[in-house]
Amino acid sequence: MSFRTIEWRNDKVIMIDQTRLPSEEIYNEYDDFQGVAEAIKGMIIRGAPAIGVAAAMGVALGARDIIADTHESFFKQLDNVCETLARTRPTAVNLFWAINRMKRVAEAHRDKTINSIRALLKAEAISIEHEDLQICRAIGSHGAPLIREGSTVLTHCNAGGLATAGYGTALGVIRAAHDAGKKIKVFADETRPWLQGARLTAWELMKDNIPVTLISDNMAGWFMSRGEIDCVVVGADRIAANGDTANKIGTYSVAVLAKENRIPFYVAAPISTLDLTLATGDEIPIEERPAHEVTHIRGVPIAPEGVPVRNPAFDVTPAKYITAIITERGFVRGEYGTGLKALVGK
Amino acid sequence: MSFRTIEWRNDKVIMIDQTRLPSEEIYNEYDDFQGVAEAIKGMIIRGAPAIGVAAAMGVALGARDIIADTHESFFKQLDNVCETLARTRPTAVNLFWAINRMKRVAEAHRDKTINSIRALLKAEAISIEHEDLQICRAIGSHGAPLIREGSTVLTHCNAGGLATAGYGTALGVIRAAHDAGKKIKVFADETRPWLQGARLTAWELMKDNIPVTLISDNMAGWFMSRGEIDCVVVGADRIAANGDTANKIGTYSVAVLAKENRIPFYVAAPISTLDLTLATGDEIPIEERPAHEVTHIRGVPIAPEGVPVRNPAFDVTPAKYITAIITERGFVRGEYGTGLKALVGK
Repeated sequence: MSFRTIEWRNDKVIMIDQTRLPSEEIYNEYDDFQGVAEAIKGMIIRGAPAIGVAAAMGVALGARDIIADTHESFFKQLDNVCETLARTRPTAVNLFWAINRMKRVAEAHRDKTINSIRALLKAEAISIEHEDLQICRAIGSHGAPLIREGSTVLTHCNAGGLATAGYGTALGVIRAAHDAGKKIKVFADETRPWLQGARLTAWELMKDNIPVTLISDNMAGWFMSRGEIDCVVVGADRIAANGDTANKIGTYSVAVLAKENRIPFYVAAPISTLDLTLATGDEIPIEERPAHEVTHIRGVPIAPEGVPVRNPAFDVTPAKYITAIITERGFVRGEYGTGLKALVGK
Repeated sequence: MSFRTIEWRNDKVIMIDQTRLPSEEIYNEYDDFQGVAEAIKGMIIRGAPAIGVAAAMGVALGARDIIADTHESFFKQLDNVCETLARTRPTAVNLFWAINRMKRVAEAHRDKTINSIRALLKAEAISIEHEDLQICRAIGSHGAPLIREGSTVLTHCNAGGLATAGYGTALGVIRAAHDAGKKIKVFADETRPWLQGARLTAWELMKDNIPVTLISDNMAGWFMSRGEIDCVVVGADRIAANGDTANKIGTYSVAVLAKENRIPFYVAAPISTLDLTLATGDEIPIEERPAHEVTHIRGVPIAPEGVPVRNPAFDVTPAKYITAIITERGFVRGEYGTGLKALVGK
């Protein structure tokens, strides 16, 4: 891939600014955890796995900057750092997964010096980033066989390199199928209101010379009914124990339309997106974002001033609409209750 | 209503410029048929019934300006005027219906002087406008009983006063229910790519103090699944003999989502939108519009330069998803083949 979503360099966190793509390819530097927290909240970086990596790096930056004489004080302040990062966005579970993993590393080395703990946290954050890339490649290789030669694949939002440490989850499956020599085409939903499909998915697929066609969200169903879409692959922000999947708003609609048109609907996500503590998707918190994301596009008003708006950032697709959930440890097709548990136990 | 969509005044055609709403409320004047044809093509005026009215007024302007010594020459040039207007947009049948009605008036009075024919055409165009308003009110009174007290009604695109001579078809039903004292709320899909919902429906409902909430198209299904939407009412651009309905792109998806969530899905349209010459919706021509409508919003780019785009302006909702079709002569619920034929024969 010809860009880096996030990396740790010279003790700073570097992120491509996803609010400015595709018109500008700008890399921002963050050297404290508050900056990283703001970047997650403001969607400089987005995508469940990517915000997991960002949060881990934020914890590492925070740990580095803590002024503490005692372990007690260090751990107390570390908790504050973690809490600030955890409060940025509520839906994607990878954020909490990454923060908890960082906390466990610190706890496990409580007997070491504060400086050693800082070094271990930095190493852990960098590992999380490296692992994420490997995980995406594994998701790709498990998912690619599901994509038939010559098919047109619909994707919604951006579950690509930009949503992960690189390669992508849904786009990882697409990339792996493309890399395996399958002649496939992609339809990208523009994904209102934030336009991740138009701005990010189209951009990264064009960079990789994977044929992509941009459509408005409300066109996907029509193209399905015309036989122009062969399957759907999307990412996920949180998957409950029964397979119910929270993902970008509009995913539910795509899934219903796919079922109505007998088109396979695949979810591609790392194991860290599973939240087996939740029995069903009803328990997943859904973030509501500000009205101006709907009423303004790139700063330009598109609606009457003061119009009331609803802006849920995610929806939940019931498991019954999902043909298979593809992870780095293989995929589960139906019977998600037992299937997902088995994968986690692997 | 506090605005006029289109009117004939001082031998000119005045239209509110729908490309500039809601930020500017500007009225354009057209004094030749070419201007009216361009206005229809460029969506200064849009909505099936409104473009029918505009085309009729365009024919009247064209007839007025024809320089002809003989009836033969006059009628030949009138054919050219009609052809220019008919080539503006392919999907809404009201355009062709209005042009044919104007042609029939001219033919029926072939024995009169050219000046008389011009006067009759002007009168006919003005009647079409006046009738359209009456028709919308009749659609409203037939449809209002279908809207339950306290319900939240979803609408897609703009089938309002701005899409007609006034009052609207889908919004006519909503207005009539509101005027009857029912406490209803409206969810308006923003309707990408042209944003008729965000720009026009939200604007005209706010003007009339009917509670409206703006959402992105891809949110409608999610709100249905949450029980937040009680019924759907949309307009139509062409209805085939079996009830299959062409309407703004995205309507098909809304209909499938409504069915999946057991929510009534109503189509409101004048009899002039019926095209009983077509057996099914497969025969309805679907306009594809320019890519820049998808890649740019109000002139601002939202996608990488050169990205391939599909932009069908309409889709066809199969009759099986439609709970009832509401017209000025009453509504048909299922069995559209016989029901629509009976309405036309009334």
